[in-house]
Amino acid sequence: VRLLDQRCLPATETYVEIDTAAAIAAAIESMIVRGAPAIGIAAAYGAALAARSAHALDPGGWRAAYDAELERLRATRPTAVNLGWALDRMARAAAPLGADPFPALIAEAERIRVEDLAANHAMGASGASLIAPGASLLTHCNAGALATAGYGTALGVVRAAWGAGRLVRVYATETRPWLQGARLTAWELLRDGIPVTLITDGAAAHLMRTRRIDWVIVGADRIAANGDTANKIGTYALALAARAQRARMMVVAPRSSIDRTISTGAGIPVEERAAAEVLEFGSRRVAAAGADAWNPVFDVTPAALIDALVTEAGIVSPPTPQGIAALF
Amino acid sequence: VRLLDQRCLPATETYVEIDTAAAIAAAIESMIVRGAPAIGIAAAYGAALAARSAHALDPGGWRAAYDAELERLRATRPTAVNLGWALDRMARAAAPLGADPFPALIAEAERIRVEDLAANHAMGASGASLIAPGASLLTHCNAGALATAGYGTALGVVRAAWGAGRLVRVYATETRPWLQGARLTAWELLRDGIPVTLITDGAAAHLMRTRRIDWVIVGADRIAANGDTANKIGTYALALAARAQRARMMVVAPRSSIDRTISTGAGIPVEERAAAEVLEFGSRRVAAAGADAWNPVFDVTPAALIDALVTEAGIVSPPTPQGIAALF
Repeated sequence: VRLLDQRCLPATETYVEIDTAAAIAAAIESMIVRGAPAIGIAAAYGAALAARSAHALDPGGWRAAYDAELERLRATRPTAVNLGWALDRMARAAAPLGADPFPALIAEAERIRVEDLAANHAMGASGASLIAPGASLLTHCNAGALATAGYGTALGVVRAAWGAGRLVRVYATETRPWLQGARLTAWELLRDGIPVTLITDGAAAHLMRTRRIDWVIVGADRIAANGDTANKIGTYALALAARAQRARMMVVAPRSSIDRTISTGAGIPVEERAAAEVLEFGSRRVAAAGADAWNPVFDVTPAALIDALVTEAGIVSPPTPQGIAALF
Repeated sequence: VRLLDQRCLPATETYVEIDTAAAIAAAIESMIVRGAPAIGIAAAYGAALAARSAHALDPGGWRAAYDAELERLRATRPTAVNLGWALDRMARAAAPLGADPFPALIAEAERIRVEDLAANHAMGASGASLIAPGASLLTHCNAGALATAGYGTALGVVRAAWGAGRLVRVYATETRPWLQGARLTAWELLRDGIPVTLITDGAAAHLMRTRRIDWVIVGADRIAANGDTANKIGTYALALAARAQRARMMVVAPRSSIDRTISTGAGIPVEERAAAEVLEFGSRRVAAAGADAWNPVFDVTPAALIDALVTEAGIVSPPTPQGIAALF
């Protein structure tokens, strides 16, 4: 598995070659790869690698080691449900297998990747249909090609709308603390020739108050059965500002991001990462000595603040439990 | 005039010695000194220095050069009204002067400084009276001793409430792009032994949703006659989140921050600074090459989202045109 190390962008394009499940797990934890769909895909390949090595070590008893590696992969990050969804698929695919499980499992991982790419193109076209000509958009974090198998969820919609000549301007929040907006979203869009204007996270509400923003478009890490949506920290504040300023809020995510086992966002675990990510910048301390930090990296936006949920199986606008159930 | 270079904090405490109005103007523009009241005070001393040099050059005709220097100082930053307020005072103080204007003008600058310090202590006690025991607070940017003659506006309230044993926890946003929260507010509060937990700007709404925040407490750069308040970019988003999550919003500012010549916030000029402040971090480029940025550094919070305006002449809760007029 060859991963573009997203921590190094945009300064350098560094690829990491990985051939064990443990290294995939470490890559997910350390954010070499990030973005809910991309995490799920990487974990699926990790599962296939786990089966290969477990079978090589013990052709008759590979299943126990395989199952343990799935649990190791599952524990890497708590919020994105695509991770568990992909590993559940890899567990189901392994169930009937006997002799050498690798060919069937690498094929399943490949299917997950290819289906994600197709879903993104479908969502791009579908979401773009909601966008009227002359629109200005705001996106947050990176829900792009880098976060998926390619093309992107929120950025897939941006790409499709741009391609259709409908966009006047695309704004992106820089997205502290990892600066995925400044580093990744800007890098992706500019490579496609789509101009982008960065703002600080705190400037989004002022942007919506003083310049017209038609849609705020984001991805999702986990969507509850009622449409409550966990996404990158700061999304909830964007949704509040959008509602106050009559911008509309679009969540773009494949069905693999929907967790039908939880009825509301209250059931979504929100990952908290190291305080150092806030206190330091590029491993240089910037905060005053002695200061502590709290670093939740996702938040939950209530369904009531979301105008449209765009999936590869259709649009639910506004999201409701019934509308979401009908997607399946 | 001896200024603590706030750009160097918290890494080093570097003082800059200044003896010309032009150097004061440059210090305000380059943010060696920042914070609305502190800018006004620095400009007042700059005016006194201008009178001294103008009188030394031309004892009979110093007034023309003095007036020109006042206009140069007035043009340094557009949003904080304390700047114009202090310079208006220095113009009025100069009007009756003949021979050597410096003694009277340095005395006027000194009065502005001393009155600001007294106002901060009065506001601290007054604002703290609104805070019930066991409270948790969130503040934004730095409205502290560093932003004023001492003690602070918003941080004056924090100091007074902490001293009265009423606070459980103080949160501060890091406040991109200049990180005044991480660099300055944390530095100030920790020097006073007040523990502080930093969050990214985007995490504030999630904080208010998941942990109890009783008050969001901020300073102001300019308050319109109806209570609409310009303050550091991101304040409006905090006010929206506070209203959605039943936290209360307190603006702490001396009457010198109130601009009675404008009826609403629509009349407040919002400064936009260089894109590089967003695109770079410590003069290292972090954003993707080719990305542009929009960098408004203040926003306007509507009076309707403010629960209490605390001034040295009393509290207006909620702020109304009548209540604000009664302060004068």
